[in-house]
Amino acid sequence: MSSVPTSDDGYREGAIDLLGILAYGALTAFERMAEDAQAAPTLADKVELATVAARQIDHFKSVSAQLATMGVDVMAAMAPFHAPFDAFHAYTKPKDWYEGLVKAFVGDGIAADFYREIAAFVDADTRNLVNEVLADEGLQAYIVAQVRLGMEHDPKLAGRLSLWGRRLVGEALSQAQRVAADRDALTSLLTGTVDRPGLDLAAISRMFSRLVANHTKRMAELGLKA
Amino acid sequence: MSSVPTSDDGYREGAIDLLGILAYGALTAFERMAEDAQAAPTLADKVELATVAARQIDHFKSVSAQLATMGVDVMAAMAPFHAPFDAFHAYTKPKDWYEGLVKAFVGDGIAADFYREIAAFVDADTRNLVNEVLADEGLQAYIVAQVRLGMEHDPKLAGRLSLWGRRLVGEALSQAQRVAADRDALTSLLTGTVDRPGLDLAAISRMFSRLVANHTKRMAELGLKA
Repeated sequence: MSSVPTSDDGYREGAIDLLGILAYGALTAFERMAEDAQAAPTLADKVELATVAARQIDHFKSVSAQLATMGVDVMAAMAPFHAPFDAFHAYTKPKDWYEGLVKAFVGDGIAADFYREIAAFVDADTRNLVNEVLADEGLQAYIVAQVRLGMEHDPKLAGRLSLWGRRLVGEALSQAQRVAADRDALTSLLTGTVDRPGLDLAAISRMFSRLVANHTKRMAELGLKA
Repeated sequence: MSSVPTSDDGYREGAIDLLGILAYGALTAFERMAEDAQAAPTLADKVELATVAARQIDHFKSVSAQLATMGVDVMAAMAPFHAPFDAFHAYTKPKDWYEGLVKAFVGDGIAADFYREIAAFVDADTRNLVNEVLADEGLQAYIVAQVRLGMEHDPKLAGRLSLWGRRLVGEALSQAQRVAADRDALTSLLTGTVDRPGLDLAAISRMFSRLVANHTKRMAELGLKA
């Protein structure tokens, strides 16, 4: 356990929010990847995506179990996040196999970075679980190889996917703002309270710089412009 | 290991076919259940189906690993079964949540029974794996409860689902016949060869009676007429 007092209700609420986000994120990732798998060009590609989709359910189960030890029902913890996640996915429906892969790499990448930033402020058990769930990057090398191969065959793809990457980040940030505005407890994990240290404005700005830098790096790995 | 000689090429081919069917069956079950999960009436129902869908990928991995120890690529082993499985699923697309549940219960049930019958004629390792994969009946009690509840709310459902169950079996048998006609090695696991014991016609007829009896029992469990 860290020095964070668990008797702090605001802290507890924030940690539950973080786990609720992860659980619902895993569930929607499962759905999305299972759908993307249907668009796979070969059966081997389908197996690749289906495997990572299935792993999301393991993540969901881990987070669900952790919430249960905290006396919280995973369904209740996820409820506040249906709207922003569903909106994000509705606004960013991949039009083809490559858009699906870029979404999995870039969209999940920036989300994972953000969750890790928040996890720095929760207790060690929760933090370890968050990092464990997010460390599962089975698909990344595969996606990079696929997207680069696709662009070799179709040079126009690079421009379209670069635009797509920017749109994904734009939509993700707009939904993240919505969550931040609605969920004080989650936001105050980052910003701290009178009794609990957090980030000041300069530190929050540095955090955003880190998120953007990592995003740019991921786009470059794919051979795309951020 | 059983008394079956592994140097028997026909036997080996038949066992590979059986594993290929199981692998492709698991993969298509994953896809179908992931799709059915999207029609789930509640998020809890979605989790239920997504969990069982994810488990299909574990099954696929186990069968794939077993094939690898036999020096066989799972992709190659599955190839002969794309057409019959894809046709079965194309002809039996569930129109709603309940048809999806009945398909998972009744269709997978009769297929599992049939695979178990064949597995009686393969070596102990393969047989154990087949039974292990098929023993995973996580969804069954859930489906029975859901379908019975649905029929309480809508008495017309029973008639429609009874018809649906008959159609599923009809399509399954017609695809099974296609496989039997195409895959001599698989068929001869059941019927035997000059060097290897198998079932005579009377025994095969008794096997079909068992399959039909189990199917009728499953329909009755759901409250449906076979």
